[in-house]
Amino acid sequence: MSVGTHIRTERLQADIDSLAALTDPGRPYTRRSFSPRFLEGRDWLAARFHAAGLAPRIDDAGNLIGRRVGTSPGLGTLMSGSHSDTVPDGGRFDGILGVLAALEAARAFRDAGIDLRHDLEIVDFLAEEPSDFGLSCIGSRAMTGALSADHRALRAPWGESLADAIARMGGVPARLDTPRRADIRAFFELHIEQGIVLEQEQVQIGVVDAIAGVTRLEIVFSGRADHAGTTPMDRRCDAAVPAAAIVGFVHERASALARCGAGHVTATCGVLDLSPGASNVVPRSARLVVDIRVSERPVAEGLIAAIRAACADAARSSHTALARFAIQSDTHPTPCDPALVALVAVAAREQGFTARHMVSGAGHDAAFVARLAPMAMIFVPCRDGRSHDPEEWCAPEDAARGTMVLAEAMLMRDRTD
Amino acid sequence: MSVGTHIRTERLQADIDSLAALTDPGRPYTRRSFSPRFLEGRDWLAARFHAAGLAPRIDDAGNLIGRRVGTSPGLGTLMSGSHSDTVPDGGRFDGILGVLAALEAARAFRDAGIDLRHDLEIVDFLAEEPSDFGLSCIGSRAMTGALSADHRALRAPWGESLADAIARMGGVPARLDTPRRADIRAFFELHIEQGIVLEQEQVQIGVVDAIAGVTRLEIVFSGRADHAGTTPMDRRCDAAVPAAAIVGFVHERASALARCGAGHVTATCGVLDLSPGASNVVPRSARLVVDIRVSERPVAEGLIAAIRAACADAARSSHTALARFAIQSDTHPTPCDPALVALVAVAAREQGFTARHMVSGAGHDAAFVARLAPMAMIFVPCRDGRSHDPEEWCAPEDAARGTMVLAEAMLMRDRTD
Repeated sequence: MSVGTHIRTERLQADIDSLAALTDPGRPYTRRSFSPRFLEGRDWLAARFHAAGLAPRIDDAGNLIGRRVGTSPGLGTLMSGSHSDTVPDGGRFDGILGVLAALEAARAFRDAGIDLRHDLEIVDFLAEEPSDFGLSCIGSRAMTGALSADHRALRAPWGESLADAIARMGGVPARLDTPRRADIRAFFELHIEQGIVLEQEQVQIGVVDAIAGVTRLEIVFSGRADHAGTTPMDRRCDAAVPAAAIVGFVHERASALARCGAGHVTATCGVLDLSPGASNVVPRSARLVVDIRVSERPVAEGLIAAIRAACADAARSSHTALARFAIQSDTHPTPCDPALVALVAVAAREQGFTARHMVSGAGHDAAFVARLAPMAMIFVPCRDGRSHDPEEWCAPEDAARGTMVLAEAMLMRDRTD
Repeated sequence: MSVGTHIRTERLQADIDSLAALTDPGRPYTRRSFSPRFLEGRDWLAARFHAAGLAPRIDDAGNLIGRRVGTSPGLGTLMSGSHSDTVPDGGRFDGILGVLAALEAARAFRDAGIDLRHDLEIVDFLAEEPSDFGLSCIGSRAMTGALSADHRALRAPWGESLADAIARMGGVPARLDTPRRADIRAFFELHIEQGIVLEQEQVQIGVVDAIAGVTRLEIVFSGRADHAGTTPMDRRCDAAVPAAAIVGFVHERASALARCGAGHVTATCGVLDLSPGASNVVPRSARLVVDIRVSERPVAEGLIAAIRAACADAARSSHTALARFAIQSDTHPTPCDPALVALVAVAAREQGFTARHMVSGAGHDAAFVARLAPMAMIFVPCRDGRSHDPEEWCAPEDAARGTMVLAEAMLMRDRTD
């Protein structure tokens, strides 16, 4: 009998509802990292870990970890989890589902009488969402040795340093430069898709092959502010014109790449600011932010180069200057571990769920954990692709199916060495 | 001997400097209509009118008028002027030059011993600039019977109605529905170009053929906000994409029309707002404002229709909706009176000034006066085309040349019937 049959939909849903109830009053669902509300959530989680036979502790990075020792000492650790913090006015599932599903899997192992050979750890990573320190994925970053001294010196608006805040969460920031953990054999993260693909295709499980790299470009065209009525068209240096051309170029080029088998490719101009922004003034400057996500690094490099060339062309033909072309941030794609991906796919198939391979266009703690250990992710559908929104919704059966795949994949992994 | 030789550059410049000194403290050059500062300026102007032998009065519309009676009773009135109010942080010349040049012309007639046959009126129109009542050209509108009861009921942020404010300026709003003046035989307005054409072409006098009509379109595309990383390119409804296409279309189409002899044509997208305007969210909606100025009405109609069709196409191909296509305001071009335009051109040529015909892309009181009487405008260069800005600058010699053309043209008109 598979462990999946011990996954209890209602128990998982009750946990989701209980954690959701711990929100800033009148503002569902808000449980910001480092806040008193967040610590309330963690107290509740620690008690639930304890009740499931997982010994709770806070690690040096400020992550909450529940641990159950395996039957084969020294074999290493299987880890699963996500994060319990939310954006302001966020949802009940983003991150939270990954923590509570891992907890439910641990309970299912116990209910099924299965003792894992590996040590089992369920983790709630600290501050995955953008925090008041201007940084995200703080706990997973720190666990993998990627939280630099500069990061730790960042300060929140109220003056506290990140190091002090991690200490306040129970971490030991002074120890974050010591050698990283070498015992983690595999990490699994279940997450809502935060997209519309699974729902639109009516597929139950997303088998994640990679987490896309994210490149953010800031582009500024500089022209000349002139009277919109008195300045002839052929004497203008209208900064809106090249900016608009780039919006079109970015959309067309990314669409063509995605159509032509370049893997996951998205590119978005979500910010376009005209200055001075008055109807009767020719725009003096235009600022664009382009968000690029790809699963294959050379595609990102080609796309960035093409956008840069298009910007130079657009500036030239509009008599404006390309005043800024800056790569604000640039992370490479993170492939999931092929062997773990295969286990996830098998776990889905063996339980009769429809599944498809896909790339995560959103970032996750798993991308940092991948620096330390083999990693895989499982996606479940969410309604209308909505996330970071109180309307965020994952059907209980979808959550349960994802948890069944998670538990089976972990069990298969436990038995392979 | 021509009246032009009696125009005194220094006297005109001294008047400009004196009126400029009456500005809100620490905020050059600000003399907002209906403000105490504006009334200070008017007191100063009335005294200057009086000193020049022009009897000052406030008409029913709240315009300040200085009048000198002509030698042939019943022949009617020659009028010249502009406005003395400014935008906040405005300049020393916009409007002001037209009032003070007309005053200087009146002084030159007297100095030259010339008695005009017509009555002469120098006018300072009330509130030409956008006022706290959300309306511009209030005095010229009212003089021509175009200030409706609805307009008069408009209220300023401090609660006062426009009717009450006109009364406070010395006007009689209750009489604004009586028959309009029938005595005005010609109106001349001298103004800085507020553009770069005269300066770039090193031409001294602009002979205005028409004041462009202004059409303002508000266009809103409505799409769907989606996660920028997780939403495939081919499943987006990205509102930025059609908006960007329209920015390009508007610029290209207006440029082509201007090149192909459609008269004065400009079209500008100075406002483009994306919502929610976050780098990692596909834009849900995009709002554009398009400012169109043309000298030939059918060109405006063709351009508006073409933009509407392009919007429908752009919405269709981007899977967004054209949620709004609204003509916010729409005024027709106002041709200047051909006979008066000819007098201006002759006056420039006879005094040896370089001149070119042109269209005013900006709106002026003269466009309203044209409903009542034949009208012409004279432009002089302003540095870098800057206006509505403390850096606004018209060289004293340019101001004087414009005033000489104004005085000569008025004199020629006085002698023609």
